[in-house]
Amino acid sequence: MSEADAEGEDLDTEDLIMQATYRALCEHGYPATSISKIADEFEKSKALLYHHYDDKEDLLAHFLTYLLDQFETELEQNLPTDHRQRLTSVVDQALPEVGEADEFQFRRALLEMRSQAPYHEAYHDRFVHSDELILQELRDTIEAGIEAGEFQDVDPAETSQFLYTLVYGALERDVPLGDEAVTELTREQIHTYISEHVYK
Amino acid sequence: MSEADAEGEDLDTEDLIMQATYRALCEHGYPATSISKIADEFEKSKALLYHHYDDKEDLLAHFLTYLLDQFETELEQNLPTDHRQRLTSVVDQALPEVGEADEFQFRRALLEMRSQAPYHEAYHDRFVHSDELILQELRDTIEAGIEAGEFQDVDPAETSQFLYTLVYGALERDVPLGDEAVTELTREQIHTYISEHVYK
Repeated sequence: MSEADAEGEDLDTEDLIMQATYRALCEHGYPATSISKIADEFEKSKALLYHHYDDKEDLLAHFLTYLLDQFETELEQNLPTDHRQRLTSVVDQALPEVGEADEFQFRRALLEMRSQAPYHEAYHDRFVHSDELILQELRDTIEAGIEAGEFQDVDPAETSQFLYTLVYGALERDVPLGDEAVTELTREQIHTYISEHVYK
Repeated sequence: MSEADAEGEDLDTEDLIMQATYRALCEHGYPATSISKIADEFEKSKALLYHHYDDKEDLLAHFLTYLLDQFETELEQNLPTDHRQRLTSVVDQALPEVGEADEFQFRRALLEMRSQAPYHEAYHDRFVHSDELILQELRDTIEAGIEAGEFQDVDPAETSQFLYTLVYGALERDVPLGDEAVTELTREQIHTYISEHVYK
């Protein structure tokens, strides 16, 4: 059995639908992504997909939940134990690297969906939840760094809010306009801020 | 002649169409704003509106140019001469006050349009231009404040980029999710940053 087959067998229908959704969003962006464009990316029976979801908003709300669950699992499993590396890692997980075309397209689609939160309660709730998760992770990391004597004696709640605002500012300035120079500058400035104001 | 009539006579057709566009965007948000919804807000002949613009994107690209021109004029005319007040004023012009429902809705629509910049070159160009205008104004203000001995000896280009990232972070975190507590906190944090890192 080839590696692809082995991997294919591990993926259940939900995973395959979620991957099709990811591809459709990267390719078409949010407004142009319809349930039929997602079905085009889905290898199994299209009827199966239409059977599971009422409409695009229903499917995409489920997609956001799926991403959140994945994000939560990754946060718990993959974070470095070193406090500085852990803070950098949380920040970098939110900011796409220049050159990662797929990741960049995906951040673009996520920002588009975030801009639609006022019109879809399910999106709204999931973005609120995701913000809380990341802020909590930033707070915990900063608290642990202070306790270990590696970080300055900053206010963990205020500092994590400030860092999160910078991360979103970088995303919003860079991703819709796609200016790589701005992307790299803002990433650098966030890391400089952390070095000067958080690390000892 | 009543005051309303006098004002009405001063407004030409373009102004009236632009005001109708503003109202439609505030009310419906970007994706749901169609040229016919804008026509509903327009008091004069609807045929006149359809005659001027090919489609929604054409009208909205024109609307962004109109806003940019207005913004440029206001920047030149209304900025305080005091350097500190001027810096605060540029930052505050970009951030809607809590409670200004109309302004808040409008920022929301602008962020939605910004998220569509990758798909419409005309939007893209206008947002790039608007970013440049604001960054230039921030740089000029910081340079003038340093020369006057009122600001610290910061790098004007880097500091204006950092402040602009914070402003966009505040907008992107607050406006789609509509959390007033976050809005006020981020505004406060930006002003604290300016007080501590820019003002002497």
